[in-house]
This record gives sequence, structure tokens and C-alpha cells, in this order.
Amino acid sequence: MRFGILGTGTVGQTLGSKLLTLGHEVTLGSRSANSQAGTAWAQASGPRARAGSFAEAAEFGELVVNATPGTVAPAALAAAGAERLNGKVLLDVSNPLVFAPDGSVTLDPVNTDSIGELIQRTYPRARVVKALNTLAAPVMVTPARVPGRHQLFVAGDDQPAKQQVTELLVSFGWPAEDILDLGGIQSARGMEMLMPFWLNLMRHYGHTDFNYGLQVAG
Amino acid sequence: MRFGILGTGTVGQTLGSKLLTLGHEVTLGSRSANSQAGTAWAQASGPRARAGSFAEAAEFGELVVNATPGTVAPAALAAAGAERLNGKVLLDVSNPLVFAPDGSVTLDPVNTDSIGELIQRTYPRARVVKALNTLAAPVMVTPARVPGRHQLFVAGDDQPAKQQVTELLVSFGWPAEDILDLGGIQSARGMEMLMPFWLNLMRHYGHTDFNYGLQVAG
Repeated sequence: MRFGILGTGTVGQTLGSKLLTLGHEVTLGSRSANSQAGTAWAQASGPRARAGSFAEAAEFGELVVNATPGTVAPAALAAAGAERLNGKVLLDVSNPLVFAPDGSVTLDPVNTDSIGELIQRTYPRARVVKALNTLAAPVMVTPARVPGRHQLFVAGDDQPAKQQVTELLVSFGWPAEDILDLGGIQSARGMEMLMPFWLNLMRHYGHTDFNYGLQVAG
Repeated sequence: MRFGILGTGTVGQTLGSKLLTLGHEVTLGSRSANSQAGTAWAQASGPRARAGSFAEAAEFGELVVNATPGTVAPAALAAAGAERLNGKVLLDVSNPLVFAPDGSVTLDPVNTDSIGELIQRTYPRARVVKALNTLAAPVMVTPARVPGRHQLFVAGDDQPAKQQVTELLVSFGWPAEDILDLGGIQSARGMEMLMPFWLNLMRHYGHTDFNYGLQVAG
């Protein structure tokens, strides 16, 4: 299958490389068609890997992944173009983190909105699924880095799109029973609002190889 | 030990009753000195249970618990009075939930502030510890309602105060190793921002007997 990934950072590259190992074709998209990060990744990753502009990646992908920072996502998706997203599953893994000079980290949008909702509103014909924004990139593609049972969450208004993303995550190595459907895209709000807590946990543990393992009565 | 609990709702009553079973004395405080909920609880709970005003509960407590809704907490603490909080451990278990007519739930304050921080700023001589705001009241006092290992979080600027709260939580039945210190009171922000996600999980599971069981590498 052909994937277009918007974003050439750690998340985009990590997801792209995983998809290649699963036999897919991947184009990583960036603001410029020949970004250093994207080009270097593609050259190191073999013939099924390409780099290009946001528009080229979106055009290429049967499924499009937003792996840009949430604060950049609106501009990246505008560059990708609505006509290249229409009807496609758009997997949004972003968090709209704002880093202040004093070291504090906040979210924008937050509380009354989320980047997942904003994207779905802006591109009503894209089939937006929020997922994978609640854990570090290495754990996304190698769940066994973290011991025991731990969970992923999906949210979105399009049930078949969520099912398709769930199957993709299962192909990454996630047990289907550990992928929780939290409902419509509005639940992206709660998922994105986990980030400040996650950052506190990262500071507490001193690394990012952890995840939420929900314990539930009977 | 003498506890003053601000708030006569489910959380205040549940914590109060647990403290009584552990041999403590408890006064539940409310806006009016003889609230129906507080009086009924005290009458049903034996000689070590009392009900009174916010000021009476704060005066009574060697340790004070804020179990009012976060949106009510500033007024409740003002009624309690700074002079009755000075030097005391103030355990803040609240979440500043705002319920909108359309059913959506948001937080206020959020993102750049939290009710825990706001309380510590407003009462600099109180020793504020944020804890227990991340799970349902029955689980707070009976962790075994939820199977397996699952965690509590504490945040606050006063290390001995956090230690005292941690010991209290251990007396509730929480293993010390499952009480995570997330740092200063600013970490209350991330803890309170868990609420929208927690509400999504409640909807997903259909009950509140669940908790976060962090899975961590190595």
C-alpha cells in the first residue's frame, strides 16, 4: 500500500521505516520537495522510500499520516491540499505543543478544541483518525519495548477509517484488544491533553519507554 | 489525627468515611454549617464524625482536604480562611470541571494554570499537595477494586507534605511503590488535564472501576 507521511522528523521517519519493513511504499513530505531530512531518509531506506513536498506525499498516499507538530499541521495540510486528502484516511498523530522560553510546555488548541477536531473540520471529506499521539515514536512501532499490556487509543467520526487504522496498528505488533476506540473525533481532545502528564512521566522515569496500561475491574 | 474535609459530596464523604475507619476524627465542611449532606453523613458515621462550615472544618483539621469541585474551591477556601490553612498540609483532590449545556466538559483553569497551582499561589503558607484527582472516589479508598498494579500521583512544592500525604495514601491501602512523585505543584496541570481522557474511558468502559497502570521498560 502507498503511504504519504507529512513530516520528516523522528515520528515521520520512524513510522515511514516501519511501513517499509511491512512491505509498503512511503513518501515522506516536507515543506520543501528536497528537504535534507527527507532526502537523507529516502536515500538510506531503499527503492520503496521517497521524499517530496507535502503535496507530493499527500498525492502519493492512499493513506496519509500527519506526523508534523500539531502547531505546524494546519499549514502542512494546506500545502498538501484538500483535493489530495478527500476520501482518504488521514491518520493524525500530532500534538499541538507550544514550547515557551521558560521551558514550560502548553497546548494550542486545547480544552475546547483539539488539532484532530480542527483538521476534521477543515477537511470534512478527509477521514480523520486520531491515534499514536500518546506515546513515543519507538514504542509506536515496537510495542514490545514496553513490558506487559499497555494501550493505544483511536478516535474519529468514520468507523471504517478507524477500523483500517486499527488493522494497521495490529500490523505494527499491537494486540487488537489493546487498541481502544474512544469514540468520535472530539475524543482527540482528551488524547492530546495527556501530553503534559506524559511529559511529567518522562521526567519522572528519565526515558520514554513507557505507556499507559489501563487496569480495569471485572 | 484530625482531618477537615471541605466538600460534602461523594468524594468528601468517601474520604471522610475511610479516615474514620482508620481511627481518625473528621469534620466535613460545607458552605453552611448545617448542610443536609454533611449533617446526614455525620449522624450516620458515629462520634468521631462532625459536620460544619468550611471554616469549622479547616479549623478542626490538622490536615485539610479540598474535596470541593475545582470551580468551587477558590470560594470554599476563602470561606475556610487563610489563617486556618497556614502551615497545614492542604490535600487538593479537585478537578476544575465545567459542564456545558451541550454535555461537553472542559476545565477552567487549564493548560497555563491549574487549580492546584492557583490554590498554592493564593495560600502561599499552606502546603498544597495535589493527589487523588485522577480516579473515582471508591477506588481512592479501596485500590483493590481495580486488579493488578495501578498508580497514584502526587505533586507539590513541599517535600515533607508530599511525604505525609504519601503515608496517608499507604494507610488507605496503596503500595508505596505505586505512588509516583511527579515533582512540584506545576505538575498538577498535567494531572488535572487527564480528566477529559478519564471521562472518555469512563464512557468506553461503562463504569469507573479503572485506573492508570503505567508499564515501564527496564
